Amino acid sequence: MTNARKPFHLNAFLMGVGHHEAAWRHPRTQERRVLDVKHFQELGQIAERGKLDSVFFADGLAVGPRIKRNALAVFEPVTLLAAIAAATEHIGLIATASTSYNEPFNLARKFASLDHISGGRAGWNIVTSGTEDEAFNFGYDAIPEHARRYERADEFVDLAVQLWDSWESDAVVLDPETGVFADPDKVHTLDYQGERFRVRGPLNSPRSPQGRPLLVQAGSSESGKEFAAKYAEAVFTAQRTLEEGQQFYQDLEERLPKYGRSADELKVLPGLVPFIADTEEQARALEQEFTDLISPDYALRQLSSLLGVDLTEHALDAPLPPLPPVSAIEGGKSRFTLVKELAEKEELTVRQLIGKLGGGRGHRTFAGTPEQIADELQSWYEAGAADGFNIMPPYLPGGLEDFVDRVVPILQQRGLFRTDYTATTLRGHYGLDPVESQFTPVRIQASA
Amino acid sequence: MTNARKPFHLNAFLMGVGHHEAAWRHPRTQERRVLDVKHFQELGQIAERGKLDSVFFADGLAVGPRIKRNALAVFEPVTLLAAIAAATEHIGLIATASTSYNEPFNLARKFASLDHISGGRAGWNIVTSGTEDEAFNFGYDAIPEHARRYERADEFVDLAVQLWDSWESDAVVLDPETGVFADPDKVHTLDYQGERFRVRGPLNSPRSPQGRPLLVQAGSSESGKEFAAKYAEAVFTAQRTLEEGQQFYQDLEERLPKYGRSADELKVLPGLVPFIADTEEQARALEQEFTDLISPDYALRQLSSLLGVDLTEHALDAPLPPLPPVSAIEGGKSRFTLVKELAEKEELTVRQLIGKLGGGRGHRTFAGTPEQIADELQSWYEAGAADGFNIMPPYLPGGLEDFVDRVVPILQQRGLFRTDYTATTLRGHYGLDPVESQFTPVRIQASA
Ligand SMILES: Cc1cc2nc3c(=O)[nH]c(=O)nc-3n(C[C@H](O)[C@H](O)[C@H](O)COP(=O)(O)O)c2cc1C
Ligand SMILES: Cc1cc2nc3c(=O)[nH]c(=O)nc-3n(C[C@H](O)[C@H](O)[C@H](O)COP(=O)(O)O)c2cc1C
Repeated sequence: MTNARKPFHLNAFLMGVGHHEAAWRHPRTQERRVLDVKHFQELGQIAERGKLDSVFFADGLAVGPRIKRNALAVFEPVTLLAAIAAATEHIGLIATASTSYNEPFNLARKFASLDHISGGRAGWNIVTSGTEDEAFNFGYDAIPEHARRYERADEFVDLAVQLWDSWESDAVVLDPETGVFADPDKVHTLDYQGERFRVRGPLNSPRSPQGRPLLVQAGSSESGKEFAAKYAEAVFTAQRTLEEGQQFYQDLEERLPKYGRSADELKVLPGLVPFIADTEEQARALEQEFTDLISPDYALRQLSSLLGVDLTEHALDAPLPPLPPVSAIEGGKSRFTLVKELAEKEELTVRQLIGKLGGGRGHRTFAGTPEQIADELQSWYEAGAADGFNIMPPYLPGGLEDFVDRVVPILQQRGLFRTDYTATTLRGHYGLDPVESQFTPVRIQASA
Repeated sequence: MTNARKPFHLNAFLMGVGHHEAAWRHPRTQERRVLDVKHFQELGQIAERGKLDSVFFADGLAVGPRIKRNALAVFEPVTLLAAIAAATEHIGLIATASTSYNEPFNLARKFASLDHISGGRAGWNIVTSGTEDEAFNFGYDAIPEHARRYERADEFVDLAVQLWDSWESDAVVLDPETGVFADPDKVHTLDYQGERFRVRGPLNSPRSPQGRPLLVQAGSSESGKEFAAKYAEAVFTAQRTLEEGQQFYQDLEERLPKYGRSADELKVLPGLVPFIADTEEQARALEQEFTDLISPDYALRQLSSLLGVDLTEHALDAPLPPLPPVSAIEGGKSRFTLVKELAEKEELTVRQLIGKLGGGRGHRTFAGTPEQIADELQSWYEAGAADGFNIMPPYLPGGLEDFVDRVVPILQQRGLFRTDYTATTLRGHYGLDPVESQFTPVRIQASA
C-alpha cells in the first residue's frame, strides 16, 4: 500500500526547551526560556518559516513526580497559543485539552475563541488524561477507569461539536439598518441530554472561521483508536518501527468506513525526535551528550509512573521486574504497551530503557544527517506508515531551526512538502474543507 | 471624608464596539469589528497610550435573549487578553470568570498562565454568574441560589489562592549543573478538603510574576460586599449618585477590619459611561443619537431578564408593573435593586427606563465636555466616593480615544493621574505589593 498521492504534513510538537528530558541541562538550550512567552512565540515563527502545518503543545493537569527534575508545561496551551497567534500569521495552533476534567461548554467556547482570534488556525488534541495525579486535582480518589474516560470523551466531543454547530455560518447578520445582530433561526438551542452532560446551548460564540477546530487525537489503545476513527482528523502516535507504523496506519484506516469516513479525512502523524548534524557520527555523539545528562533518579520516577510499578529502588543495571498485564492499566494503555514490549524485545536493563526513552518518552529517536532524516521520513510516508510527522525537537530552539532550515528544504526539493502556504486555516493546511453546521438545513430559496 | 491621599486609578471596561446597547448601529462604530481580534488589541494600545491601569472584559456563559439584537462577548476573555498581552507592554489585563461554572484547578492555572505570559499583568474579576441561561449550560434546571453561589465562590477563591501559593517564589531553581529544576521543599501539596472541592495540588505552574492575579469583584449585594471585603483588591460597582457612591465606599471600608485588611488594600471603582464632545449640548445630542437607536423589543427582553418579570408585552409608555422584593431574586441582586429604585424614585415609564439603561445597563452616564468629565471624576474622588473609575466608553474605539486623548491629559495636568507608568505589573499600577506565598516559612538562615 502506498499513500504517495496524499500530501505530506509536518507538525512541530513543542515542549519547554526541548523533548529530551535532559534538554534544559544541555548548553544548546537556555533553561530559563521555559518561563518566557517570547521563546514560544519565536518557535511559532520558526515553524512558520518552514511552512509547517502546525505547532502543538501537550498538557497535563498535575505536576506529579516531576517537580524536582523537569521543566513541566508551564503555560495553559490555549492561552499560550493565543499569544503565539498574535505573533504569527499562518501556522496552525494545536492545544491539548482533557475531556475528563473540563466542562464541555467552557472548552468548546475556548477553542471557538482561539479559532476566531487566530483567523481559523485552532486545533484540539483531545485527551482523556491518563495519570492518577490529575484525578487528585479534580476531587477523585483514584483515576477514573480507562473505559469510562473514553465514554465520557465520546459524549463530550459529540456535545462540543453540536455547540460549535449551534451557530450556522451565516447566522451573524450585523445589519445596523434593521438592528438585527443575528438571525435567531440560524442559532440553535440544543437541549442536549446525554448520560453525563445536560447543556441547553447555543454556544456564546458565533461560528468560528473553521467551523470547528481541527480534531486531533493521541491515545493508541483499542478505545483510543476507535475514538480516533470516529472523530479525529489527525492522529499523533508513537510508533517505533516501520512495520508497527504500517500496521497502525492500516488498522486506523480499516476502522473508518464504520463511521462513514474515508482515509482522506484522517492524517496519521507518528512522532520523531531528530538529532541532526553534518555527519551521522556527530549526530550520534550529540544524542549521547543528551543521554549522559539524564538524572537516573528522575527518570526512574517517570518510568515508575508510566508503568504503574515502583522502580525507584530498583537496580539500574538489572532488567525490569515483571510488569502487570495491560488490562490492569487504567492510565495510558498504549504507551505502557509500547514500553513493555520495547524492554522485553530488546532485553533492556532499566538504565538502557531510560536512555531509549529519554529523547521522547517512547517516540522514535533518529540521529543522522539532514539527508538521512529526510530519507527516513520519505520512506515511512511512501510505505504507508504515515501521512506526515510529528516532529519533536530534542532541544529548542536549535533543534527546530535545524529541522526547518536543513531538513525541510530537502523535502521541498523532492517535491514532498509545500514551498509556501496555499491556505489560511489549519484545516486548509491539512487539505480539509471548512465544516458546515449540522443544523444548516437545505434551505429552499424563496422565489424572487 | 476625603481620600485625596490615595492615588487615582482608571480602568477601561471594554465591550464589543461599545457599552451602549445600540453602539453597533451608530456610524461612529464599525460593527464587524466585534469579531476582529485586532480591534481589541488596538483598544489595549489606546488604553496604554493613556497610561490607564488596566483594561477589563466582562463575560457571561450563555447568549440568553440577546441573540437577535446585540453583540455578545464573542471571545473568552483570558484567551483574548493573552492576544492583547502580546500587543502591549504595560496595561493591566482583567478577565471575568465565574466561580459557579469552572473547576478551581483549571481556572487558577489559566490565570497563572496569563500572568506569566503578560509579565505580571493579570487580574480576575470574580463573578458568581447571575442568569438562569448560564445555569442551563452546566446541567442545572434552575439558577443555583444566590447564597449558595457566594458560598461556593468563597471556597473557590480560598482554594485558588492556595493553588497559586503552592509554589513559593523561589521554588524554581533551574540549575543545569546539579540537574535540579525545582526545590520540592518549596512546592506544596495542599490536600485541600473543602465542602465542595477536594484538590491535592500543587498547581502545575510555578509562581507567576504577581504571585497571584489582582482579585477584582463586581457584585454589590450584601453577600457581594462581604465577599469583596474579604478578598477583593479592586471593586467595580454601579453607583448613580455621589451620595450612594459615598455610602457604598464607606460601607465597604467598614467591612475590611474584620478581615484584618486596611483601606489601602481595596480600590473602589464606580462605572462611568462618558459621552464626550466640545460642548455640553453636543455631548447631550450625541447621547440622544444613541438612545434613538435602541430597539425597544430587544431592550424589553434585556430588562425582563434583569428584573425577572416578563415585560415583552408591556406598554412602553406605562410605568413598570409591581416588582418582586429583592429577597425573591436569585440572579444579580444589586443591579435589580438599582434599577428598581431608579424606576420608582424617578417615576419612569418603561421607555424612559430603557433609555436610562441603554448606556451602561444601570451604570451612570455622563455627557459633557472633557473638562466637565474631569470635574465629575475629581469631585467623586475627592468626596470619598471612589478611588478611581471604571470607564465604559459607549462606542469604540472613538469613545476610548476621546477619553484618553482629551480627558486624561486634564487629569494629568491637575496632578491627579500618572503621566507615565512607574510599575511593570497590574498590582504595581494599583499601588499594591507583589504577594508572597502563604506557605513561605520564615526560614532561619543557615550559619555560614
Ligand atoms: C504525540 C502524543 C502526544 C500526547 N499528548 C498528551 C497530552 O498532552 N496530554 C495527555 O494527557 N495525553 C497525551 N497523550 C496521550 C495519552 O497517552 C492518552 O490520551 C491517554 O493516556 C490514553 O491513551 P491510551 O488510548 O493509549 O490509553 C499523547 C500521546 C501522543 C502520542
Ligand atoms: C462593572 C461590573 C461588571 C460586571 N461584570 C460581570 C460579568 O462580566 N459577568 C457576570 O456574570 N457578572 C458581572 N457583574 C456582576 C454581577 O452583577 C454579579 O457578579 C452577580 O450577578 C451577583 O451580584 P450581586 O452581588 O449584586 O447579587 C458585573 C458587575 C459590575 C458592576
